[in-house]
Amino acid sequence: MNLSSQAMIEHMTKNITPVNDAWRLRAREHIDSLTKPLGSLGQLEELAAQIAAIREGDISDLNAKGVYIFAADHGVTEEGVSAYPRDVTRQMVLNFLAGGAAISVLARLHKVALNIVDVGVDADFNNAPGLLHCKVSRGTKNMLHEAAMNDSQLAEALAVGQQMALRAVTSNQGIVAIGEMGIGNTTSASVITCALTGAEAEHATGVGTGVGPKEYMHKIQIVQRILRQHRAGFSSPREMLRCVGGLEIAAMTGMILAASQAKRVIVLDGFISTAAAALAVTLEPNVRDYLIAGHCSTEGGHKILLDHLKLSPVLTLQMRLGEGSGAVLAIPILESAIHLYAEMATFTSANVSQASR
Amino acid sequence: MNLSSQAMIEHMTKNITPVNDAWRLRAREHIDSLTKPLGSLGQLEELAAQIAAIREGDISDLNAKGVYIFAADHGVTEEGVSAYPRDVTRQMVLNFLAGGAAISVLARLHKVALNIVDVGVDADFNNAPGLLHCKVSRGTKNMLHEAAMNDSQLAEALAVGQQMALRAVTSNQGIVAIGEMGIGNTTSASVITCALTGAEAEHATGVGTGVGPKEYMHKIQIVQRILRQHRAGFSSPREMLRCVGGLEIAAMTGMILAASQAKRVIVLDGFISTAAAALAVTLEPNVRDYLIAGHCSTEGGHKILLDHLKLSPVLTLQMRLGEGSGAVLAIPILESAIHLYAEMATFTSANVSQASR
Repeated sequence: MNLSSQAMIEHMTKNITPVNDAWRLRAREHIDSLTKPLGSLGQLEELAAQIAAIREGDISDLNAKGVYIFAADHGVTEEGVSAYPRDVTRQMVLNFLAGGAAISVLARLHKVALNIVDVGVDADFNNAPGLLHCKVSRGTKNMLHEAAMNDSQLAEALAVGQQMALRAVTSNQGIVAIGEMGIGNTTSASVITCALTGAEAEHATGVGTGVGPKEYMHKIQIVQRILRQHRAGFSSPREMLRCVGGLEIAAMTGMILAASQAKRVIVLDGFISTAAAALAVTLEPNVRDYLIAGHCSTEGGHKILLDHLKLSPVLTLQMRLGEGSGAVLAIPILESAIHLYAEMATFTSANVSQASR
Repeated sequence: MNLSSQAMIEHMTKNITPVNDAWRLRAREHIDSLTKPLGSLGQLEELAAQIAAIREGDISDLNAKGVYIFAADHGVTEEGVSAYPRDVTRQMVLNFLAGGAAISVLARLHKVALNIVDVGVDADFNNAPGLLHCKVSRGTKNMLHEAAMNDSQLAEALAVGQQMALRAVTSNQGIVAIGEMGIGNTTSASVITCALTGAEAEHATGVGTGVGPKEYMHKIQIVQRILRQHRAGFSSPREMLRCVGGLEIAAMTGMILAASQAKRVIVLDGFISTAAAALAVTLEPNVRDYLIAGHCSTEGGHKILLDHLKLSPVLTLQMRLGEGSGAVLAIPILESAIHLYAEMATFTSANVSQASR
């Protein structure tokens, strides 16, 4: 890797165009001609119009879908911010590969190709089959005391995301779901949320995997201390990512930028993938047009980020698992919107009377 | 049909037992052993536990699913309460059969067997293939001036619902979705909502298929006048159903009672099917345990009924279509809950460390 993260980001934010408004309008006209009261499919209509606009009308190639789970460890786990030991990142990667995790079950059920990416797990997977081996380093540094990454690590992690977007394009996936696994990464997402939106640490920090009340107070204090430690870097989203991000967060930001460039429908999962998306939107506002929020989790910071991005979640099921679970769960709803758009009869074709207005 | 509606209901409310709490507890224990933070699958965990309790642990037979759409016309359409002409009920039944309606698309996509039941459309379908011919009469009477049905019509409509529950059982469907088509039937649902919950007409009345502001005020006044006209009958849910119900609403109430008797998972659609469910729960409170609210529509009365029944909707997508669309859309989410329950690894089987508590 020779590029600096600055050069990498300049390259990755090029040619991300706003979605095609003419196509959005044309899609809305088509939707209004279908045999149902005007607007009665609610958010499904918005989703279909957005997808048609992203794909510029052609939604026939949306059968192939992929979910990309980026896994990495976090130096900040030294501070006792998680209910689970750090080794759970490694253990869960193996569980994903063995087919026993929630995302394994959901991807299988909803026919979404599962891609598990090691971008920075603190473990040696010995060329485990099925795993995409893209390790940048064995976890980040402890951001309470120093920057989580150096510049070259950030550039490499962004490039991993870009590589996965290319993989999605090569596999002809029109819809990509983005998820993660990394013990400690809600702490990173909380810091990013505060830095991007100005939210208070106590609002942007949740229980993550489920810390108790005492550990929760401690976690808030750690977030506050990290915010003070790195405030000089918060003027630039790139420095923010380097100082308080995670390798999986940087990879997700990279994939979101590259998938927007490639005009894919991007389905976000929970708090952490949305933090990565918020950074991508800060780097290039047009990215916003390509994003769909799969769900809203119970982490307070997630709601803050969704509001910041003006995204309406497809699902609100009080989930807080990560792993891309909320993104993949939203995919059958997106598919419903797509099939309704493509297959419903019109008032004319079905000889149904229109409303009297 | 020889039974009175009274005898019919006595027969149909027998042997509806509360769901098995021992099974619900056992299901919760199983869910807590799966490789995810405690409670992190949110509402999916509640759904899986409810389904396991309904089916008494055996959820392996839940692959077959059916949606039942009951269609009927309403005498009250004479009062100008709908944006669409009455003939649209007939037209949409033909659209369902031809495969062009929203519910046709959704049932096909999500592999839910589609059953269209003519329980009272004001049209002659000439033995149209694919339609379940169960017509009780060509629509109801205008409830602004007289009871919508006589006692024998009510008994017959309830029996149609019972017959469809039997059809579901014969087809080995563990999950049944309930929907309807009937121009004018939101007026009926609003009156039922006021009569059951004490809600004011202006809160329980919505725009239905999309009336304008002037017609909306008129619709509220019609609901108020119907409430005054029939208040004597509101002491009994059976009389309520007869005086201000619809043939499709009575059939749905019958199906909900009979499907509860048969321990099926019942997925409600929107405002009108939930009104039918609220009547069924008033007749036999144990029915509540078998119900899942597929979605919450934009009709204000629907929210009132869901709160009254203490049901949390699976989806909230600003839909207001009916036809069982919101119920069938929730089915992939229920299937997700079922597959997660049945297929996820446990902490022990996957060698994943537990949380430190």
